[in-house]
Amino acid sequence: MATATETDAMRRAVALSARALGDTAPNPVVGCVILDTSGAVVGEGWHRRAGGPHAEVHALTAAGPLARGGTALVTLEPCNHTGRTGPCAQALIEAGIARVVFAVADPSPTAAGGAATLRAAGVEVESGLLAAEAEAVNVAWLTSARKGRPFVRWKYGATLDGRIAAADGTSRWITSAESRSDVHRLRAEADAVVVGSGTLIADDPHLAVRGIEGATQPLRVVVDTRARIAPTAPVLDDTAPTLVAVGKDADTAHLPGVDTVRLPYAADGAGLDISALLAELHARGVRSVLLEGGPTLAGAFVAAGAVDTVTAYLAPALLGAGKAALAEAGIGTIADALRLDVTDVTRLGPDLRVTAVPTVPTATAPDEES
Amino acid sequence: MATATETDAMRRAVALSARALGDTAPNPVVGCVILDTSGAVVGEGWHRRAGGPHAEVHALTAAGPLARGGTALVTLEPCNHTGRTGPCAQALIEAGIARVVFAVADPSPTAAGGAATLRAAGVEVESGLLAAEAEAVNVAWLTSARKGRPFVRWKYGATLDGRIAAADGTSRWITSAESRSDVHRLRAEADAVVVGSGTLIADDPHLAVRGIEGATQPLRVVVDTRARIAPTAPVLDDTAPTLVAVGKDADTAHLPGVDTVRLPYAADGAGLDISALLAELHARGVRSVLLEGGPTLAGAFVAAGAVDTVTAYLAPALLGAGKAALAEAGIGTIADALRLDVTDVTRLGPDLRVTAVPTVPTATAPDEES
Ligand SMILES: NC(=O)c1ccc[n+]([C@@H]2O[C@H](COP(=O)([O-])OP(=O)(O)OC[C@H]3O[C@@H](n4cnc5c(N)ncnc54)[C@H](OP(=O)(O)O)[C@@H]3O)[C@@H](O)[C@H]2O)c1
Ligand SMILES: NC(=O)c1ccc[n+]([C@@H]2O[C@H](COP(=O)([O-])OP(=O)(O)OC[C@H]3O[C@@H](n4cnc5c(N)ncnc54)[C@H](OP(=O)(O)O)[C@@H]3O)[C@@H](O)[C@H]2O)c1
Repeated sequence: MATATETDAMRRAVALSARALGDTAPNPVVGCVILDTSGAVVGEGWHRRAGGPHAEVHALTAAGPLARGGTALVTLEPCNHTGRTGPCAQALIEAGIARVVFAVADPSPTAAGGAATLRAAGVEVESGLLAAEAEAVNVAWLTSARKGRPFVRWKYGATLDGRIAAADGTSRWITSAESRSDVHRLRAEADAVVVGSGTLIADDPHLAVRGIEGATQPLRVVVDTRARIAPTAPVLDDTAPTLVAVGKDADTAHLPGVDTVRLPYAADGAGLDISALLAELHARGVRSVLLEGGPTLAGAFVAAGAVDTVTAYLAPALLGAGKAALAEAGIGTIADALRLDVTDVTRLGPDLRVTAVPTVPTATAPDEES
Repeated sequence: MATATETDAMRRAVALSARALGDTAPNPVVGCVILDTSGAVVGEGWHRRAGGPHAEVHALTAAGPLARGGTALVTLEPCNHTGRTGPCAQALIEAGIARVVFAVADPSPTAAGGAATLRAAGVEVESGLLAAEAEAVNVAWLTSARKGRPFVRWKYGATLDGRIAAADGTSRWITSAESRSDVHRLRAEADAVVVGSGTLIADDPHLAVRGIEGATQPLRVVVDTRARIAPTAPVLDDTAPTLVAVGKDADTAHLPGVDTVRLPYAADGAGLDISALLAELHARGVRSVLLEGGPTLAGAFVAAGAVDTVTAYLAPALLGAGKAALAEAGIGTIADALRLDVTDVTRLGPDLRVTAVPTVPTATAPDEES
């Protein structure tokens, strides 16, 4: 059983891990705290970016010789593989750590096995401490590891009656400044931000993170079957990388120097295949996607079982006309509604932010299905 | 300044007043607590139904001779007129009450003036104690007194994406059992429940209160321009009174014995005139209306500036198709959205209940406009 001191240290490790959300793809966020034999904190660290040292290495470096005989609290099972940095299980053993407590087991086949390696070397190993908290911070990476595709958060801003634009197409601004700045936080925490060509044409959005110091810009992704994007579109500037997903036969002659990818069409012929899009993003190291809409593309993601979390910014306003937040999602009758559980409700200025997750877990990538 | 004892007594009076919500039309709900000279509670009362004794009379009767020299805490300014019962100001004077503290002034021209009468008789009078709390409980009646038309609460049950039915029209059940039973509480607190003919035809609802012991059944109102209602409709049973509002030329020959009222058409030709409907209900003693929809009729109420409070039951579910919660409300562009303030968010089982009021107060009845 973990002691109260260890629980406090794990809570600290979880908080440290969260600092790097959005910065570590394709790696998870991980935090680590080292306690010496008396229970005093002698080292802390978190994984800051892929290719950089893992959390455990940062913390062991900080602790130096004080780590010997001590306890490591880690938010994720220490890795066992030699990637760009050495395996952490080995580093912990070499530093003389006597006990390792981790929150969540590593579901990825390449990195898992750290616990076994530690035990084989005589280290005492315990797991599950503050698992829910650690899992919540790392939900995107863990989901992607389990499903073999990026985690998808669909966000939208709508009126209480579910409209994302008025009858004449105006939508600036439905939600409050507080909500809009919260969206920048979600962007900063995501590896990629995705919009459909409808939103591109209607709003000509920029999609980069603004107002968050030190944020890693996400990959901006436009799903644009017919390559309708103009080479002068703001989303193609150099603030952040941008990928334009187009259909097999799209004419991209007007887009020299633009990163494009050709994807198969959706089975129903409406745009591009969502699974192929997610597979492409996964292959590029994207582990978390912020789907910013619009309603048509969001409908296709829902129909594909590819929405893992919904973040709805609801403005207390009524329109009675205009586009609805979600268009055709292949749901014809009430029994087939996509049911969610509300996990959080927060007031943001005048608005409500409602976070909800499907009650039945969403689909895995086709090649991972059993 | 009111003492702490008086504040406690007023809080009790407010709670007592709330017991009769939905039972007192066309009168307000009122609670009263009498303290003797030592500050001990010697009488309590609340107005239970129109035609019955007012709160002060109940409380004075309970107090008997102990009221002499005491203080009366009343949630509403004591009335000054001789209606079906005598004026309360006079009753308080005759009982020898030395001090009257009331929460909210009476805005109705016939009943107001009680404070002046009390002062003229040498009674010490103070107002405003717990005014916000008392106003909240009595909001329907106070709004109707100020506006000269019934207070209107529009309630709807929708998915997070704002749908009230699926593509095939199915809607049972979008919201949870907890939400649906909360709607019965709202019905019990209202004097009338209103639906459009679209909802009548689609759902054939019963609209009576179920599951709330001792509830006064509201007047059931169907807004049915062409008198499409069948004489066998459940809403016409004898559980509660029912009014069918029809157009001037409607053929009502199939509805013998049904209470119908002929109303003028709306200026835009779409159905009946909402102001005329509200005036008719007001004339019948209705002070609070629960508008249960559907979306078309709710749009007309919003367009008429006749929604005073919105109660949205939001089920965490997505549909992507089906009727939206609110149809055409005369709002064409985002600047004209009806902006609200959220006054309450409560979880009901899996659902959220969001209560919101227009940021700009809604319109008064045409004949009350200045
Ligand atoms: N309030 C908000 O949160 C929010 C967020 C975003 C957008 N919006 C609003 O939404 C409106 C635009 O919505 P929209 O629905 O027209 O645009 P959208 O969902 O952004 O884009 C839809 C388009 O994406 C393309 N697409 C490619 N693959 C697809 C697939 N598998 N499934 C569906 N579409 C696919 C299709 O066009 P091609 O096949 O021709 O490429 C499709 O017409 C704008 O008014 C915008 O302001 C609001
Ligand atoms: N989830 C919920 O909270 C909820 C609540 C209620 C209904 N619903 C659903 O809503 C659907 C029905 O909605 P709906 O919009 O068709 O019906 P509705 O709003 O109940 O009724 C509309 C009809 O009312 C009549 N009407 C009379 N005066 C009117 C006026 N001034 N403005 C507008 N209409 C007036 C019109 O028909 P005439 O002129 O011919 O009489 C109009 O077509 C059903 O599927 C029902 O299940 C859901």
